[in-house]
Amino acid sequence: MSEPNTEALWTCTEKVRARKPLVHNITNYVVMNTSANTLLAAGASPAMVHAEDEVDAFTALVDALVINIGTIDARLATAMRRATARAQALGKPWVLDPVAVGITPFRREQCRQLLQAGPRVVRGNASEILTLQGDGEQRGRGADSTDPVEVAQAAAQALATKHGTTVAVTGEVDVVTDGTRLVRIANGHAMMTTVTGLGCSASALVGAYAAVEEDAVLAATAALAVFAVGGELAAERSAGPGSLQMHLFDALHGLDEATFRARVRVS
Amino acid sequence: MSEPNTEALWTCTEKVRARKPLVHNITNYVVMNTSANTLLAAGASPAMVHAEDEVDAFTALVDALVINIGTIDARLATAMRRATARAQALGKPWVLDPVAVGITPFRREQCRQLLQAGPRVVRGNASEILTLQGDGEQRGRGADSTDPVEVAQAAAQALATKHGTTVAVTGEVDVVTDGTRLVRIANGHAMMTTVTGLGCSASALVGAYAAVEEDAVLAATAALAVFAVGGELAAERSAGPGSLQMHLFDALHGLDEATFRARVRVS
Amino acid sequence: MSEPNTEALWTCTEKVRARKPLVHNITNYVVMNTSANTLLAAGASPAMVHAEDEVDAFTALVDALVINIGTIDARLATAMRRATARAQALGKPWVLDPVAVGITPFRREQCRQLLQAGPRVVRGNASEILTLQGDGEQRGRGADSTDPVEVAQAAAQALATKHGTTVAVTGEVDVVTDGTRLVRIANGHAMMTTVTGLGCSASALVGAYAAVEEDAVLAATAALAVFAVGGELAAERSAGPGSLQMHLFDALHGLDEATFRARVRVS
Repeated sequence: MSEPNTEALWTCTEKVRARKPLVHNITNYVVMNTSANTLLAAGASPAMVHAEDEVDAFTALVDALVINIGTIDARLATAMRRATARAQALGKPWVLDPVAVGITPFRREQCRQLLQAGPRVVRGNASEILTLQGDGEQRGRGADSTDPVEVAQAAAQALATKHGTTVAVTGEVDVVTDGTRLVRIANGHAMMTTVTGLGCSASALVGAYAAVEEDAVLAATAALAVFAVGGELAAERSAGPGSLQMHLFDALHGLDEATFRARVRVS
Repeated sequence: MSEPNTEALWTCTEKVRARKPLVHNITNYVVMNTSANTLLAAGASPAMVHAEDEVDAFTALVDALVINIGTIDARLATAMRRATARAQALGKPWVLDPVAVGITPFRREQCRQLLQAGPRVVRGNASEILTLQGDGEQRGRGADSTDPVEVAQAAAQALATKHGTTVAVTGEVDVVTDGTRLVRIANGHAMMTTVTGLGCSASALVGAYAAVEEDAVLAATAALAVFAVGGELAAERSAGPGSLQMHLFDALHGLDEATFRARVRVS
Repeated sequence: MSEPNTEALWTCTEKVRARKPLVHNITNYVVMNTSANTLLAAGASPAMVHAEDEVDAFTALVDALVINIGTIDARLATAMRRATARAQALGKPWVLDPVAVGITPFRREQCRQLLQAGPRVVRGNASEILTLQGDGEQRGRGADSTDPVEVAQAAAQALATKHGTTVAVTGEVDVVTDGTRLVRIANGHAMMTTVTGLGCSASALVGAYAAVEEDAVLAATAALAVFAVGGELAAERSAGPGSLQMHLFDALHGLDEATFRARVRVS
């Protein structure tokens, strides 16, 4: 394909709603609730399981896995390595969200190892993607990007090629690339940066879409487009970040094809 | 009693609001915030404490304990065993929520041990109750039930009899039984399944009610009826799962006797 | 200064919005999401990082640190000691929220140690402050205060003097003191006690303000005044605790100087 057309994007959403994929999340404590609610609102079935005693067994039962290093520590790191190794062995799609990877050597080392387990999609902000592809220097400010998406585009392509994966960089405009193809999503709203964990929720949604669509560029583009359109709709109804989060769940739940087609700006 | 009458159910709610029972939760990370807010909205006082260094001492101070295995690991399992043993020794009511018990042998073994500590009430979905009473096979899909409540009714009665406890099965209709008595609650709204952790919140509420009412069938029925009526009221005011969660807290906080009596469908 | 004037208080808010301080939280699982959203709504940048492998390195990068012992265990206690020692060594402001310190000897011992690391501000309810300054007896009920703020005023002054810190006691009226100066904030709304973790969110906000204003009495007063005025505005628009939490984020995000000046009651 040259670029995903609107119909193909919407078909992914219909598949998620019809199949209700079971999405296994080993994610951070800040966003566990909102990630689960994002998945439910989109029609998927979330599960948060990270005990060493069961993570292997559980990964075998799920449709996709989402790894988010936001509040990673040694124990969660072990669970993540085991779950991703299992997903890789079983050929199950999994998504890496390298939250704040630039802030410490510990995070960079964890991501270096996780990238060996073959993520289907890596979803991060510009600073995170630049760090993964970069020279190991400290980048970003906490979980926030200090780089514009445009600057990270070449790094995203290089990272995708190097690891045989698809990389999604989110920001004012989102970019999705497998190294060759490159898609831009020009949806979303500036107020979304004032709600914690919306990037993490987007990554969870990419997991649900990757469970139902093998073309990772299409799956990631569809998930991010739906999320960003939902964010736009929510922002227009909101007086601030509290109401934005609430309306976003409602918008993802209620989004219909006509609204999506009228709003989506993918190129 | 043949079945709980509406007046007895409402009296439980008034007791919770008047006594503000302190409810100790060792629960999962996804729902800690919403469980605490559910308890506060209903008039109870929540506490989340699970450190090995203090769980024994704290259990002695509380009015009820709620154990929820959603994100259980070895450390939380230790805390749960200590807290439930202490509650049992002190005769304090405690509630078991066997989240996703069917998905791994680890969860089944944890619940087997916890059931030995004499829960006052076990609250689960149909797949969870069938697993606890069943043949040990894998059941459910993540935290979601794959069985209708009706199918679990006989298992609920057998489980209640076997362990001398009260079992509540929630779903489209809720069933509460101590093995002999059996109550049905036909309230709630389908959209409640699109919000994460409402079953967990219901279990927390059962803990608050068990703290003020010794008849466990009455306590569980009253808690689940109030929760389901609150869910109905919330759903009617909501455009999706985001607003449903918000309105549910408001509805539990503001519920009055006339509305409850007009809505409740217990038989 | 005799007492903070309204202009000085508002200037702190403008500084937070302009500088977007990076606030490092080692806090409890119940409130991680709402604390992060409070900080974002107020214009700051939150980060939740507690792994032993990176907490030292990360503390060096941040503008302020907030320590909240709500769900403390041995591992979090280690992270807290390391982060606070680092903050002290680097002269970075940090805030202690001694949640439920009165309920177990374990919590009292943790806070005794943390107080040695020189918090810029201690923010608690009356029972918590009385416990820190007191005779070591059990006080409070879970996370709730059983003492009025007035009773804790002398203890707050003594505690501030003893540790060379600023103590903020929140309740129906908030009190901020460095042992000599004493400020009262008569804002807020009774319904705020029906939402979990608003005290914790207030502590997080104090961290953001302490990052931009060296006078700790002014910083704490400004943060608590903005939070309480936001709570008042939110409560007036709310039907219960669910909508209060949502409107509070919106109110903190949208608060303007005229509204703040018209509402604030500091003396």
